[in-house]
Amino acid sequence: MPKLYDLELSGNCFKVRLMCALLGVPLEVVPVDFLGGEHKKSPLIDMNPFGEVPVFVDGSVVLRDSQAILVYLARKWGGDAWLPTAPAEMAEVMKWLMVAENEIARGPADARLHDKFGYTLDVALARERAARILALMDAHLARKQWLALGRPTIADVACMPYVALGHEGGVPLAPYAAVRGWVERVKSLPGFISMPAL
Amino acid sequence: MPKLYDLELSGNCFKVRLMCALLGVPLEVVPVDFLGGEHKKSPLIDMNPFGEVPVFVDGSVVLRDSQAILVYLARKWGGDAWLPTAPAEMAEVMKWLMVAENEIARGPADARLHDKFGYTLDVALARERAARILALMDAHLARKQWLALGRPTIADVACMPYVALGHEGGVPLAPYAAVRGWVERVKSLPGFISMPAL
Repeated sequence: MPKLYDLELSGNCFKVRLMCALLGVPLEVVPVDFLGGEHKKSPLIDMNPFGEVPVFVDGSVVLRDSQAILVYLARKWGGDAWLPTAPAEMAEVMKWLMVAENEIARGPADARLHDKFGYTLDVALARERAARILALMDAHLARKQWLALGRPTIADVACMPYVALGHEGGVPLAPYAAVRGWVERVKSLPGFISMPAL
Repeated sequence: MPKLYDLELSGNCFKVRLMCALLGVPLEVVPVDFLGGEHKKSPLIDMNPFGEVPVFVDGSVVLRDSQAILVYLARKWGGDAWLPTAPAEMAEVMKWLMVAENEIARGPADARLHDKFGYTLDVALARERAARILALMDAHLARKQWLALGRPTIADVACMPYVALGHEGGVPLAPYAAVRGWVERVKSLPGFISMPAL
């Protein structure tokens, strides 16, 4: 059974738990003592020198980064459903994985790190970035049901959590009706599981 | 022939030109009047609402984000050579595409934006992030020839440019011997093309 070194309140860890639930893949969840810095010490730091969670292990495969783990899960257990391999379709999914890794991480996710976990960072800049990406997503989702393709993909799983948790970082979704509709669609997927504050 | 809306001094645009050169794919390069804000106006803003370059067009396929474009190029013209579809191998490549999108973009690339192009950003933070990711990459590359697999992949193409341009942002590679060796290996790939200051 694959194993996730996990922090319950991390949206990045949640993405992995959610994708496994959507795929029906059993997952052993191992809580990490984050406040005690367990992820910065051996053996976790040997598995992920970046010193972060999630860390995902499946046999000899050891992975860091939630987006990379989603790619692995989709390719191993999802066929072409959640991540197609045709060039144009795969690239459409990738565009949004990159938004999760960049604009969303440095926007609503950073704002939440500041407000909820006391991280020292420029929260005004994070909220400005959040407003910018949410406006772009809202315009996009006003015309589409799902971010990348005509069906849910790992793009939606990658982008939804920190958008829907934005209220914990002073980034409510009230101005973004199309984004709110999409969040509800993701929450209605068969097998969906939730996390605190979502 | 695919078309790239291009800025010569952009490392992200260079990745696209480089990958096409490595694959032997002819590319129409269309310079964008960046200082004149052409990328913020129609028709470019309609192709990429994010208002950034590169923008890549291949028939009806219109893509933003250099990492997503690399995925498209590799899948369309590279078979499994530059981006394998087996789950573990694809995920290894993805880990490093995400480093290009996150740690390298917010590290050495941001420092260069500040120093070379006068962007207003926290350059001390960018250099701190640069030192952190370069130390991690140096330790990794002390044991490996290429970032993701036993051969060059789009991971190397995605990560190399802004690392090798670090000196333009006050982030020289002098302390990182393994990184320097890897940069030289990328530069020695058959078909390699360069860009200013690389």
